Amino acid sequence: MTPEAMRRALEEVRLAREAELKAQYDRSLPFADGMFDRWERAKRLGFAKGASIYDSACVFGDVTVGAETWIGPWVMLDGSGGGIRIGSTCSLSAGVHVYTHDTVLWALSGGKIKPRQAAVSIGDRVYIGSQSVIARGVRIADMCVIAANSFVRRDLPTRTIAAGVPATPIGHVEGEGESVRLVFNQDVLADESSLL
Amino acid sequence: MTPEAMRRALEEVRLAREAELKAQYDRSLPFADGMFDRWERAKRLGFAKGASIYDSACVFGDVTVGAETWIGPWVMLDGSGGGIRIGSTCSLSAGVHVYTHDTVLWALSGGKIKPRQAAVSIGDRVYIGSQSVIARGVRIADMCVIAANSFVRRDLPTRTIAAGVPATPIGHVEGEGESVRLVFNQDVLADESSLL
Amino acid sequence: MTPEAMRRALEEVRLAREAELKAQYDRSLPFADGMFDRWERAKRLGFAKGASIYDSACVFGDVTVGAETWIGPWVMLDGSGGGIRIGSTCSLSAGVHVYTHDTVLWALSGGKIKPRQAAVSIGDRVYIGSQSVIARGVRIADMCVIAANSFVRRDLPTRTIAAGVPATPIGHVEGEGESVRLVFNQDVLADESSLL
Repeated sequence: MTPEAMRRALEEVRLAREAELKAQYDRSLPFADGMFDRWERAKRLGFAKGASIYDSACVFGDVTVGAETWIGPWVMLDGSGGGIRIGSTCSLSAGVHVYTHDTVLWALSGGKIKPRQAAVSIGDRVYIGSQSVIARGVRIADMCVIAANSFVRRDLPTRTIAAGVPATPIGHVEGEGESVRLVFNQDVLADESSLL
Repeated sequence: MTPEAMRRALEEVRLAREAELKAQYDRSLPFADGMFDRWERAKRLGFAKGASIYDSACVFGDVTVGAETWIGPWVMLDGSGGGIRIGSTCSLSAGVHVYTHDTVLWALSGGKIKPRQAAVSIGDRVYIGSQSVIARGVRIADMCVIAANSFVRRDLPTRTIAAGVPATPIGHVEGEGESVRLVFNQDVLADESSLL
Repeated sequence: MTPEAMRRALEEVRLAREAELKAQYDRSLPFADGMFDRWERAKRLGFAKGASIYDSACVFGDVTVGAETWIGPWVMLDGSGGGIRIGSTCSLSAGVHVYTHDTVLWALSGGKIKPRQAAVSIGDRVYIGSQSVIARGVRIADMCVIAANSFVRRDLPTRTIAAGVPATPIGHVEGEGESVRLVFNQDVLADESSLL
């Protein structure tokens, strides 16, 4: 197959798939996210029932994911440095990065010091907003909420709402099931509580 | 076609396209962003004349885009929760995310509460810096500027300059056309005005 | 080749490559990042020995990269506005964006003002955390460290640790090679020093 024939074939399958996705789901996806099923990929990765993960996400090393958890496009789950445990019914928004190592001292030492490593755990029913970064070693307990574009470097106890660069607690979660609600700290400015 | 033959064919078309893009535009793109035309995709999506959108961007639901607006790689336009209106001559930098829903209470309730939804509008001549996130329900008026890595949760009136996580106003825009200019608030620190 | 045959062939090569990567490296990559070699791409781009760059990264214009430097997925190196010089043994984490232009005034003027442009330089042994953005014109000297989700708009002298939106200095780097270490400013809050 010549490169030119291949290019035409790719163009045709892209257009055909785009039309299908538009008709069925009213959406237009990047080439590979549209081509490959995200529930099937989650099954092949051993994730629990109902979990899904976009093609454009990366998964390194030992990563477990609970039932119904949604993992968006451009997500990084780098469990190569000690494993990542993620609970059920979590929402890992588009562009969330979770790490179990960093290469700060590797770079500064000109490659002489190995990456630092530590496992990460994320409980059940956790929401992580778009493009937030979770650093190596962090433990996020059940029912936490992290606002978009945050950098989380410290452990978060159950039901914490955290936001910012670096992320700090700005409130907590009360109630269960359909009566669950967000409660913001009194000393939080209006502009901070608006993170959610 | 065997997987091995397919892999060689993909490799060949990738190298051929890479060489073309290098010669014509002095650039090297990801596989699919290089393979598919971004003005053609914008036309198929019904965007106005001269608009363009990279293959690696996602478009969900009802999204309208005005003339000459530039939409970069890894952009998320999730209009599934109420629609997104974007004006003309806007710049949506690489990695910008625009949402019309959030799944915070969906996750916390173990899937019992539906995502919250609200439409988003972005006026004409708006600049949104790289990897900024625009939350559901936000209205950004004409000629606003949003710095990179910001999280916008509140409406922004015409000609506002906003920055940060969460984004707050740090100045305004004066003039028109070739005499347009940025004016920063007096109480803004040097480090904040340097966001632009 | 019909679109349906093409789709099956893509599915098969994706599954075959996924199984190979799982067995050899214990990882699962996005379609194109898994299909194409990142050391070979770095060579074609003229980067120095041992450098690597994921398929999903963009490289525009004049970009030079030193030996052993690691460039992750979804990285933007836009050297179209004046060139980017990156030293050796740097770590440009996933989602880092480096720009040599901005289109703020282009958008505000309705396309009448051309993008502003300025070259960027990044020294040797520099660490840039995930999803940080480096603005046009910035010079980052040797052995600097930039925390995740930062926005860097000012020059950073040798051995600076910087963090935040906008990024500000929060410490410095002492020592060499295996005895290199991070020293945080005394006035830095615990939550800020935890950025690393």
